[in-house]
Amino acid sequence: MSDTVKYLLDESQAPKSWYNLAADLPEPLPPVLHPATQQPITPDDLLPLFPLSLIEQEVSTEREIEIPRPVRDIYRQWRPSPLYRARRLERVLQTPARIYYKYEGVSPAGSHKPNTAVAQAFYNKEAGIRHITTETGAGQWGSALAFAGTLFDISIQVFMVRVSYQQKPYRRALMETYGAQCIPSPSELTESGRAILAQRADHPGSLGIAISEAVELAAQRADTKYALGSVLNHVLLHQTVIGLEAQAQMDQADDYPDVIVACTGGGSNFAGIVFPFLGEQLRGGRQVRVLAVEPAACPTLTRGPYAYDFGDTAHLTPLTKMHTLGSTFTPPGFHAGGLRYHGMAPLISHIKELGLIDARAYQQLDCFEAGMQFARAEGIVPAPEANHAVRGAIDEALRCKEEGVSRSILFNLSGHGHFDMQAYMDFLAGKLSDQTYDEAELAMALAGLPSVTAA
Amino acid sequence: MSDTVKYLLDESQAPKSWYNLAADLPEPLPPVLHPATQQPITPDDLLPLFPLSLIEQEVSTEREIEIPRPVRDIYRQWRPSPLYRARRLERVLQTPARIYYKYEGVSPAGSHKPNTAVAQAFYNKEAGIRHITTETGAGQWGSALAFAGTLFDISIQVFMVRVSYQQKPYRRALMETYGAQCIPSPSELTESGRAILAQRADHPGSLGIAISEAVELAAQRADTKYALGSVLNHVLLHQTVIGLEAQAQMDQADDYPDVIVACTGGGSNFAGIVFPFLGEQLRGGRQVRVLAVEPAACPTLTRGPYAYDFGDTAHLTPLTKMHTLGSTFTPPGFHAGGLRYHGMAPLISHIKELGLIDARAYQQLDCFEAGMQFARAEGIVPAPEANHAVRGAIDEALRCKEEGVSRSILFNLSGHGHFDMQAYMDFLAGKLSDQTYDEAELAMALAGLPSVTAA
Repeated sequence: MSDTVKYLLDESQAPKSWYNLAADLPEPLPPVLHPATQQPITPDDLLPLFPLSLIEQEVSTEREIEIPRPVRDIYRQWRPSPLYRARRLERVLQTPARIYYKYEGVSPAGSHKPNTAVAQAFYNKEAGIRHITTETGAGQWGSALAFAGTLFDISIQVFMVRVSYQQKPYRRALMETYGAQCIPSPSELTESGRAILAQRADHPGSLGIAISEAVELAAQRADTKYALGSVLNHVLLHQTVIGLEAQAQMDQADDYPDVIVACTGGGSNFAGIVFPFLGEQLRGGRQVRVLAVEPAACPTLTRGPYAYDFGDTAHLTPLTKMHTLGSTFTPPGFHAGGLRYHGMAPLISHIKELGLIDARAYQQLDCFEAGMQFARAEGIVPAPEANHAVRGAIDEALRCKEEGVSRSILFNLSGHGHFDMQAYMDFLAGKLSDQTYDEAELAMALAGLPSVTAA
Repeated sequence: MSDTVKYLLDESQAPKSWYNLAADLPEPLPPVLHPATQQPITPDDLLPLFPLSLIEQEVSTEREIEIPRPVRDIYRQWRPSPLYRARRLERVLQTPARIYYKYEGVSPAGSHKPNTAVAQAFYNKEAGIRHITTETGAGQWGSALAFAGTLFDISIQVFMVRVSYQQKPYRRALMETYGAQCIPSPSELTESGRAILAQRADHPGSLGIAISEAVELAAQRADTKYALGSVLNHVLLHQTVIGLEAQAQMDQADDYPDVIVACTGGGSNFAGIVFPFLGEQLRGGRQVRVLAVEPAACPTLTRGPYAYDFGDTAHLTPLTKMHTLGSTFTPPGFHAGGLRYHGMAPLISHIKELGLIDARAYQQLDCFEAGMQFARAEGIVPAPEANHAVRGAIDEALRCKEEGVSRSILFNLSGHGHFDMQAYMDFLAGKLSDQTYDEAELAMALAGLPSVTAA
């Protein structure tokens, strides 16, 4: 049999709607609360930040939401993305498992992030918005929104976590090449930023702080909105194009996943591949085991309680119920910058509580080892975030070998590692080590969770 | 009409043979000469360096050469590559031209180079070869061969021009991630390297020196061969898969190129897209104007005489007739490292002499400006080498606008710029300048061309 097994869809088979998991949930999501009143927020509360169309998607329970034509039109530049059978990896592992991976690194920004960036830019453009603020950690989201911004002629202002801004000049250069403005956060441009800098002038920044800055600016300006690259329901919704394509491609393969594996930071690439399959199961279709893989140094799903918390450090966002390590928690530096968020998407936290998914945490050396093994077998160098999914999939495949069982394993290879070669260099040079968070800091962050009595 | 116009071929439409321009040449190529005897070389002379199957391809005049199944199988990972109509760019330029581009950045190594790397690794594997040596400048070729090596389980040793080795650690990391060994050249591992270092311990290296080192090592070992990423007939042959696909895709578009534009260093991506169309013309089919774009700082086609010369600095290679700036010529440092070779593929030099193609040289600022304009319109950041083709295509489109004529322009976007963001950073910061070579050095290099009386 051939070594390269690729499943492609032609454009006529591309999804015309996103899939909304809210339609099939056995219990609805807990409400999002206004921090002042602790009452459920209204669409009006969100209007300073998002166009109405996205707010409607945020609360929609419609199962299918049409992908607008101009969005599908841009998706077509790189979508449908390929789904591969990892036959060479299977051979290296000598596993009876059938390993499949969906490859999102084919987008111009190199990850799954443009799936929602393009949609968000479109809806903002439609609403007459000319500027969007956002934050970025490792830079994948920022460069995806910069890409979408240049296509829709919307100016993009990205607050980039200062330590990443300094360590990842090439991600910054990519955003600037697309015409976006990239600002190290904390910055002097916002009150939130100035307050942090007053305490510590050399503050390295965090995703929570960068979110505060971007939200603050957007809320002040009528022609400016804010965009988030993960966590929110509408962001996860846009990513379901991944899983919808994967369903059709697994059909082509005449197979169905027994296990689906994806990495989780805020949760968007995980939701993207998992939700359509999970929806199938919730509607009485085939069961699938789902594994979320997260970094041991930021173990939101495996260590964080399920509680109401803020999405940002300055507490400008609403309160959402989610698995959280506390909004003041700062994970140690490790190379999967896209997985360093203190919270988890409410939808994913909810289905974790409902027992619909499992979670597992891995150290970074284990993940890079898996990424190297994958790169040498399959020829694609994964992003450090995606290495978590690779590790999870390899371990599932090795378990098949131990048990002498051939299961079908599908994982999401959410992005390539071309902008992360420093991490691979460090790994190859033996300079990379596992990272652990500070238990005392975690305890303090958790003690600081807001007390919420409502809902 | 839709903004994203993408032409894809399904796998059944993928080329099953490469196209060999030698079959349709109005005059045969001048012979390759043995440097000692100045007599045409025989296949036996090349056996220490290449497996017989590749030597046969080098001298073949068969029009179609079958692509072996295992090579097609690996091609399928990313091929057929997409061909796009650049509608957004057309709109920005307000041109009546129809601009198409073939995008080779979708390969795992990010450029067209794997098209031949995979083929060469296959033929070497078939011949029982376990090690391959090669050279690389900017690193695109080295990482492509490293990719192919890991798939065929052949160990790869890459001599990387020392200045690039230092300036492009991430390209090196990519090769090492694929399991290849990367050595800064000149090195102490070879006589050629030691001789250069004896003269100048901090020599920055050149492609010509790195070739000498790789050739020297391969010639000494029975289980080791040498691979070149451009220039040679068989390398250009393997790249014709690009143009063959583009022909079918232009058919889909119900259009035919009036002009084809590609950048030239050694000439392989140029040959890849151009030769199938040119063959069509030579067999009495439609005429096409062909434009080779090269860097003004290394103007092989526009300044170099057509003469016999060595391919390397230590004069270990045979003599080939080509446009050359002299094997001792070292171009100034500029960012399109893949275009810094002193010579030009003999096949391309030959058709230039026959008047079948035009050539034009551009400065690097003009090229980066074009690349930025392209990135912001089309969302893809081109490699600095590919920016030369973008510049050429944009200028052709602007000419259409001036003349009020709608021509069809096809260019080869040979690779993405994800590993070249330093160059974009420098451009954005205004730190990039045009580069010129030293006239005296060029004169000296040309004066040193070997005197050849034979053939």
